[in-house]
Amino acid sequence: MPTNALELYFSPGSCSLATALALEHTGVAYTMRRVDFRAGEQRTGAYLSINPKGRVPALAVDGTVLTENPAILLYLAQTYPESRLAPVADPLALAKANAFNAYLCATVHVAHAHKGRGSRWADDEAAWESMKRKVPASMASCFALIEEDLLVGPWVLGDELSMCDYYLFALARWLDGDAVDLTRLPRVADHRERMMELPQVARMIARHEHPETAGC
Amino acid sequence: MPTNALELYFSPGSCSLATALALEHTGVAYTMRRVDFRAGEQRTGAYLSINPKGRVPALAVDGTVLTENPAILLYLAQTYPESRLAPVADPLALAKANAFNAYLCATVHVAHAHKGRGSRWADDEAAWESMKRKVPASMASCFALIEEDLLVGPWVLGDELSMCDYYLFALARWLDGDAVDLTRLPRVADHRERMMELPQVARMIARHEHPETAGC
Repeated sequence: MPTNALELYFSPGSCSLATALALEHTGVAYTMRRVDFRAGEQRTGAYLSINPKGRVPALAVDGTVLTENPAILLYLAQTYPESRLAPVADPLALAKANAFNAYLCATVHVAHAHKGRGSRWADDEAAWESMKRKVPASMASCFALIEEDLLVGPWVLGDELSMCDYYLFALARWLDGDAVDLTRLPRVADHRERMMELPQVARMIARHEHPETAGC
Repeated sequence: MPTNALELYFSPGSCSLATALALEHTGVAYTMRRVDFRAGEQRTGAYLSINPKGRVPALAVDGTVLTENPAILLYLAQTYPESRLAPVADPLALAKANAFNAYLCATVHVAHAHKGRGSRWADDEAAWESMKRKVPASMASCFALIEEDLLVGPWVLGDELSMCDYYLFALARWLDGDAVDLTRLPRVADHRERMMELPQVARMIARHEHPETAGC
């Protein structure tokens, strides 16, 4: 197994949980660096020199900084193939996995972001409130597509757990806060339950979501 | 070279131009299938049975349908490695390329979509108008990051043309309509000019943007 120095920049509650879970899955050694969003650390010069986007996750690999969950997840899958995070030897199957991740990144995460990040796309409070009001409906619509068309079962890609399951799980944790009715998404709800039962998931939730008590 | 039956579902003016350009770059044979957005064809049962997202691009590979530009572009790069569309043998370099594409897909395209697709994220016209007003600023901000941090030069990844150049070009064509001041983006503007001079780009713009006269 390659022994790169890996540093994950993360923030509790954010989608960096997806990369954190995949890292934990590989069993490789890494360091977690919290970016304090409440204090605005993501907009400081120090952090922008690491990731000029001012977002998380960022993964430093021997000092080279990677960004964007879909890109980082595939990097981990290719670099640690024994972890079986993705069907890396089959370009067509891999494309289906990457398409799933692209949907989470560009459509699902974006739908959710309209709850608290409206200022990215409009300058007045009335528009922000209007965006917030639609989040339950747009997130429900995104997850209905996952429920009916994308989640093969029992795992996202079928019989084997993959990077897609970790990414889906990280975003599915937002459904309650986004007021989406889980009873209409029984397959998504069941997937989330089964993910919670995995020891690496329980371990990483403690570190990623409660870094104060986990001491990282 | 593999001889899969490839069918590209596209719409003029849309981001399917990125996949179309990469296909043309490979030199492989493919069929182009126009989805008539003006007639709402993307919401018909016939098209939703191909791509339940109701979007383009979709690429059918021997009947298996792939979606999302980042996933399709990587599939083409891996399946036709002699086309050198991406650094497929170097996971770290590939991750940087995929991160660039993810940024285009999830941040740049999304910023642009707030001009005409506001109903995805809000239900009232006042909010849609507010979103429209911010598009010049948000697109300018996205492309400033590309100008200053992401575009290595002369091509996106450095010395070699890649899938990232085609994707960037497809979205940079929207800058004029989005009222972004190109004089503040000299490197992006120069990149767009050089892309236009490539014969495969001129050829594909004719087919993708003017399918009536190109007879496809």
